Amino acid sequence: MSFSYHRTVRFQDTDAAGVVYFANLLSICHEAYEESLNKSGINLKDFFTHPQVGFPIVHASVDFLRPIFCGDKLLVNLMPQKIGTEKFEINYEIFSSDVVVAKAITRHVCIDANTRNKQALPTNIIHWLERNRREIEEAERRKAREVIS
Amino acid sequence: MSFSYHRTVRFQDTDAAGVVYFANLLSICHEAYEESLNKSGINLKDFFTHPQVGFPIVHASVDFLRPIFCGDKLLVNLMPQKIGTEKFEINYEIFSSDVVVAKAITRHVCIDANTRNKQALPTNIIHWLERNRREIEEAERRKAREVIS
Amino acid sequence: MSFSYHRTVRFQDTDAAGVVYFANLLSICHEAYEESLNKSGINLKDFFTHPQVGFPIVHASVDFLRPIFCGDKLLVNLMPQKIGTEKFEINYEIFSSDVVVAKAITRHVCIDANTRNKQALPTNIIHWLERNRREIEEAERRKAREVIS
Amino acid sequence: MSFSYHRTVRFQDTDAAGVVYFANLLSICHEAYEESLNKSGINLKDFFTHPQVGFPIVHASVDFLRPIFCGDKLLVNLMPQKIGTEKFEINYEIFSSDVVVAKAITRHVCIDANTRNKQALPTNIIHWLERNRREIEEAERRKAREVIS
Repeated sequence: MSFSYHRTVRFQDTDAAGVVYFANLLSICHEAYEESLNKSGINLKDFFTHPQVGFPIVHASVDFLRPIFCGDKLLVNLMPQKIGTEKFEINYEIFSSDVVVAKAITRHVCIDANTRNKQALPTNIIHWLERNRREIEEAERRKAREVIS
Repeated sequence: MSFSYHRTVRFQDTDAAGVVYFANLLSICHEAYEESLNKSGINLKDFFTHPQVGFPIVHASVDFLRPIFCGDKLLVNLMPQKIGTEKFEINYEIFSSDVVVAKAITRHVCIDANTRNKQALPTNIIHWLERNRREIEEAERRKAREVIS
Repeated sequence: MSFSYHRTVRFQDTDAAGVVYFANLLSICHEAYEESLNKSGINLKDFFTHPQVGFPIVHASVDFLRPIFCGDKLLVNLMPQKIGTEKFEINYEIFSSDVVVAKAITRHVCIDANTRNKQALPTNIIHWLERNRREIEEAERRKAREVIS
Repeated sequence: MSFSYHRTVRFQDTDAAGVVYFANLLSICHEAYEESLNKSGINLKDFFTHPQVGFPIVHASVDFLRPIFCGDKLLVNLMPQKIGTEKFEINYEIFSSDVVVAKAITRHVCIDANTRNKQALPTNIIHWLERNRREIEEAERRKAREVIS
């Protein structure tokens, strides 16, 4: 199975219209990314705090299918993918009560944090990408088998 | 000219990597939208607080061209456009020191806030869209004339 | 034991100085409050979304004892207390690796959300306060016994 | 007069109860602090981004006197004060339509950002504190004269 992150919607995530403020859903997706890196053995403090090598987001998008409310228990499925020697992309599916309520994408480029020049993805990220790829492939094989049997 | 919004990047907008946290740039774009509505005579409290008619964002995307730092003085150009009887889209160009540092889009659908059913855009939004369209067209004509002369 | 809330510090919680942005720690405390209400059987959507009866914060304070970094695994201990027919106060202790890193307080007043007039605390909040009081007292008795034996 | 900062309340500042989310008011106060530093000639990017010398907040508090809504045009009065060789405190009064709607305090300590040891306030901050003190004193003298005449 791909990596899943559980997250309850907080009061702080909402706005005066009574639902999640749109940009906050992208932050919830980023939390899923952080948790997935952490699970892969990456130290979050070192990775995100004044790092030598950074992975800034160069593109993000989000589609909202249903309103999301305070207290909703979200499940975020995360599917990262290498899209170049210096780039990866993450697809997110956000569920509430087994229904897809939103989808999102973040595209990241690897840079030297001082010069801000692009550079090849380092080993720890390559491993994280491969591990996620294998888990997604296995999940798909399992699903295919279930359909056959 | 299209509507422009001036905004200094705040400490709160940044993250431990030292630049603007990606999702916060979409919030800055939304501020430009709010200011544009306000300039058009719309009461922001009534429009955004438990309204009868809402304009939730169904799609948003953002592209980052340059890093954005605390203290940067941003200029956000906003170009809204009607894209259906119930929908409008806003394109944003974000400048810092006369250079485009990011571009963004938000797509909004008009709903009855209680039933959450789609409904036709109301008069105040139609006026806001038309006024912006005229201003953009005029700006383009001026630019064209400058090129000719 | 008093109610405890586990929370990993996210990239979004940090600022360009590399640590948690001060106001965000109060939001983390509020999450602990929400989770405690939820555990007590209160529906968070109903409680926080355009409610008839609200519990706005009239006072909040926070003291920082140590810097808090991205990835830190926080434990928030929450001790709510009735301080009047219409008021309650929550004390929070925030731990990281068994060390207190911050303390905070929020004071809430019960109001009719339409008129914004004060009113007596309702039954569900009285129950929540009593349950928490009992749990804290029990924890203290246990601690006292451990010291004696 | 003491330094004043004008700030319109944004949709993003609000929550599902329809008013400003409590912790966000402290962020609005911090913006006033940033703007005051900027006016005093301090470069905000250098001051706040991975600085050598930092001024973390060790204590903050806020009192809410009235609800604050989306679109409200706030005025934040800022009164900083030296409270030790290594410390300063800022008092904030937040007005809406000439009425005080909230008051807040932030207390800052000067540290070496690498070792996190306390150190004496540097010259630029001493200047900022003195300039603000003079302006507040002058404002008080003017007020006193107005009362007499």
